[in-house]
Amino acid sequence: MNGGRFITLEGLEGAGKSSRAVELKAFLERHGKPVLLTREPGGTPLGERLRELLLTPADTPMAPLTELLLMFAARSEHVTRVILPALDAGQWVVCDRYVDASYAYQGGGRGLGAAPVAALEALLPPRARPDLTVLLDLPVETGLARASKRGAADRFERETVEFHARVRAAYLDRAQQAPQRYCVVDAAADPAAVQADIERAAGALL
Amino acid sequence: MNGGRFITLEGLEGAGKSSRAVELKAFLERHGKPVLLTREPGGTPLGERLRELLLTPADTPMAPLTELLLMFAARSEHVTRVILPALDAGQWVVCDRYVDASYAYQGGGRGLGAAPVAALEALLPPRARPDLTVLLDLPVETGLARASKRGAADRFERETVEFHARVRAAYLDRAQQAPQRYCVVDAAADPAAVQADIERAAGALL
Repeated sequence: MNGGRFITLEGLEGAGKSSRAVELKAFLERHGKPVLLTREPGGTPLGERLRELLLTPADTPMAPLTELLLMFAARSEHVTRVILPALDAGQWVVCDRYVDASYAYQGGGRGLGAAPVAALEALLPPRARPDLTVLLDLPVETGLARASKRGAADRFERETVEFHARVRAAYLDRAQQAPQRYCVVDAAADPAAVQADIERAAGALL
Repeated sequence: MNGGRFITLEGLEGAGKSSRAVELKAFLERHGKPVLLTREPGGTPLGERLRELLLTPADTPMAPLTELLLMFAARSEHVTRVILPALDAGQWVVCDRYVDASYAYQGGGRGLGAAPVAALEALLPPRARPDLTVLLDLPVETGLARASKRGAADRFERETVEFHARVRAAYLDRAQQAPQRYCVVDAAADPAAVQADIERAAGALL
């Protein structure tokens, strides 16, 4: 196996992705792997500018297809400039949200369905597919209650419980369709137990 | 025929699109049509912010696929918020650049080819197809010499003659593939003659 491996973390607001990503990086480094930790939308100077456009609440709502295209514009830059070069250099890449987030948020939450997301995913280089995707699954109310403690709500956190229920359902559907790539973890459990589940799944790639 | 008609103007830098668009609007208004004049990339508050990202020269070149996705993100917003509502309200829409510009600049100039552009075009609402596209065609050197008199060059104007030659070839190829929609005008001719050609083509829609 040449090059690094590509692990993505997915889940609702408040699922604990950022904290788990930091601990996953430390776990992989303890096993001697060089790790790049990154996030979407963002990960490049252009991507961070698009992140701001995407997450800042605005007076005029953005059309769902516009949101999807902006997510993939940021992703294209991220893949080309950051993710593939890191994998080629032998680094392991841990990414907080990736393509599955578009299936969940724009396909499910915004109601665009999977087809336009799949059409855009097909434009990305084939090498940019995750080796492992960890879905931090938890009830919508639990996630939103946790996220609400973090300060001002972004454009997605402001959405209704119904929106987030569609996001969760789309994530679980993705996991069912690709069980060999997905590891679904109960993110409502104790953080140490969640981390142990993630390390077991990531450890299988070592 | 319900609703307005949709006319796009295309061509290289320096072809005179903006001036011809203003005169085309005046021509249609003289024939009693309400006209919305707009442009790409841009046409909405979000689109104008993306226009700035797309046209401002940057230290790091943008990946070609990123550029294509940003163009379509701006376009999606433009179609949803401006073009379709205007057409539905019975207005005629004159747009300075549209989907064909992506076939020419990103497909031809950047070398992405037509396939990814077609995949993105397929995501737009079917009603958002132009009734008439005027291609203001002229030799690359003539266009660039004219454009250079306008002040600081944007990201596209800074490109090589070879880049612009690929753009022109892709435009002419598009015109050949859809002769019923396209009107190719010799933009190196006298402005009054160019305008007369455009008015003849637009007049056929009246």
